[in-house]
Amino acid sequence: MDLNRYIDERVTLVEEALDRYLPDAATLPGRLHEAMRYSIFAGGKRIRPILVLAACEAVGGETARALPVACALEMIHTYSLIHDDLPAMDDDDLRRGRPTNHKVFGEATAILAGDALLTQAFVLLSDPESCPELPPATLARIIHIIARCSGSMGMVGGQVVDMESEGREVDFPVLEYIHTHKTGALILASVQCGGLAGNADEKTMQALSGYAGAAGLAFQIADDILDVVGEAAALGKGVGGDQARGKITYPALLGLNEARERARELKERAIDFLAPLGPLAEPLREIARYIVDRGR
Amino acid sequence: MDLNRYIDERVTLVEEALDRYLPDAATLPGRLHEAMRYSIFAGGKRIRPILVLAACEAVGGETARALPVACALEMIHTYSLIHDDLPAMDDDDLRRGRPTNHKVFGEATAILAGDALLTQAFVLLSDPESCPELPPATLARIIHIIARCSGSMGMVGGQVVDMESEGREVDFPVLEYIHTHKTGALILASVQCGGLAGNADEKTMQALSGYAGAAGLAFQIADDILDVVGEAAALGKGVGGDQARGKITYPALLGLNEARERARELKERAIDFLAPLGPLAEPLREIARYIVDRGR
Repeated sequence: MDLNRYIDERVTLVEEALDRYLPDAATLPGRLHEAMRYSIFAGGKRIRPILVLAACEAVGGETARALPVACALEMIHTYSLIHDDLPAMDDDDLRRGRPTNHKVFGEATAILAGDALLTQAFVLLSDPESCPELPPATLARIIHIIARCSGSMGMVGGQVVDMESEGREVDFPVLEYIHTHKTGALILASVQCGGLAGNADEKTMQALSGYAGAAGLAFQIADDILDVVGEAAALGKGVGGDQARGKITYPALLGLNEARERARELKERAIDFLAPLGPLAEPLREIARYIVDRGR
Repeated sequence: MDLNRYIDERVTLVEEALDRYLPDAATLPGRLHEAMRYSIFAGGKRIRPILVLAACEAVGGETARALPVACALEMIHTYSLIHDDLPAMDDDDLRRGRPTNHKVFGEATAILAGDALLTQAFVLLSDPESCPELPPATLARIIHIIARCSGSMGMVGGQVVDMESEGREVDFPVLEYIHTHKTGALILASVQCGGLAGNADEKTMQALSGYAGAAGLAFQIADDILDVVGEAAALGKGVGGDQARGKITYPALLGLNEARERARELKERAIDFLAPLGPLAEPLREIARYIVDRGR
């Protein structure tokens, strides 16, 4: 299959939907909505929404059913980037080659734009007009997974432990905690909720969860490797930034070769989990390959 | 009726439930959960959760059904206070006589504790174990109202316009926009969602919404008046803080007497809306009286 074409088509769908689901700058307060849109349309890779759509399709669901879920996850991912970049956190001036939200709109508006994007995800997920095909019980389950994976025992929890670990000696269990929470939780939520939107049965949900756990960790290891060896241009930020900041990474802890080997193994494991799903799951398999090959 | 006793009993219920619904400091990451709990248990008046419970009872619903909804609204209110107090926003060192969250836990943790409290509200509202008596369709409607009233076109929107108006000449429509959004929206959500938890019919929901709109604005005017004339001790912050900060207030725009008169009228209007509800709505009526009489 042509993964690039598959991704491009879905990125277009997601970006058109995000445009519909977000208030525009003509809606009061205009500057807040401008700030929300600035970061949402800053050229992200849309990995989470694509995983949502691919998981929905993998279980035989129509792409359109999962579109609001995909957009909600991208809103949450984007809010987390805005807050991570703040002076009190990572203090980053650039993100994907453009000035960060607080550099353009000021710190206060950036904090509130993040808050509003997180909230808008739940406005969208609970909106009967946006999600007419998903029964309320499914929506409640999707909302629960997304909220749990985003909160203090998910993404935010991972961010806190990451922050606390900066410049300290960190062992392997802490590193795994950080990654399974900071990035892994939202990737797990994406795949699980895509499956639920596509009406997956419990056995299929387990296969999807196994895939997401392995692929999510592989994604993070690949990101760590890219930070060491990758091209600055591809990431839109400086290479070696994690190291300079004293952040613990897989290559630092395992060595570069061992980290690569681990990513490769996780990719295989992710694909193995999808064995019961057949050809509809091919995009999910290709995404796992793509994730890891970025970091080679 | 004895409003103080009524409130005390419900504050106890709400605080016991908040303790159950929030991860404790023994759960990873401990410091994040400590920060969340620090602000949740900082002695707030619990006006929003009490309104939730009183609205549920006013329509004949059992108090316990509305308890998770009440706690979710208190979490959202608390997150908004943590973020409002940040150096980039109001830069407050004290809240209710205690150091603000970022003073104790640092700015980064305070931002994340706010994020996590907002998210935890939706974890709770979508949790079938916490809300076993509310059908999924009701929960979805409750989640939608709460998210909408908290987001860019609700509370966060009001906060942005308030911030943008600091030190500027502001006219009456802008002042009303700020107040109906910054505080009014969450009060509206509290009363509406209490009614939904109690299974109110549409006509009763309209009466409750009318009550909440009027009472919410009365509450804000009373707060503004207290800032001018009130006792510092009662508020746990300096008197005249709004004025010093160049914030627009009702007494500044209308004069103290006219502001008092407007609060009194709104109280009457709020109570009139409840005419169809009979004696079960007495606590809601008493709360409207209490809100305004604070600012006398």
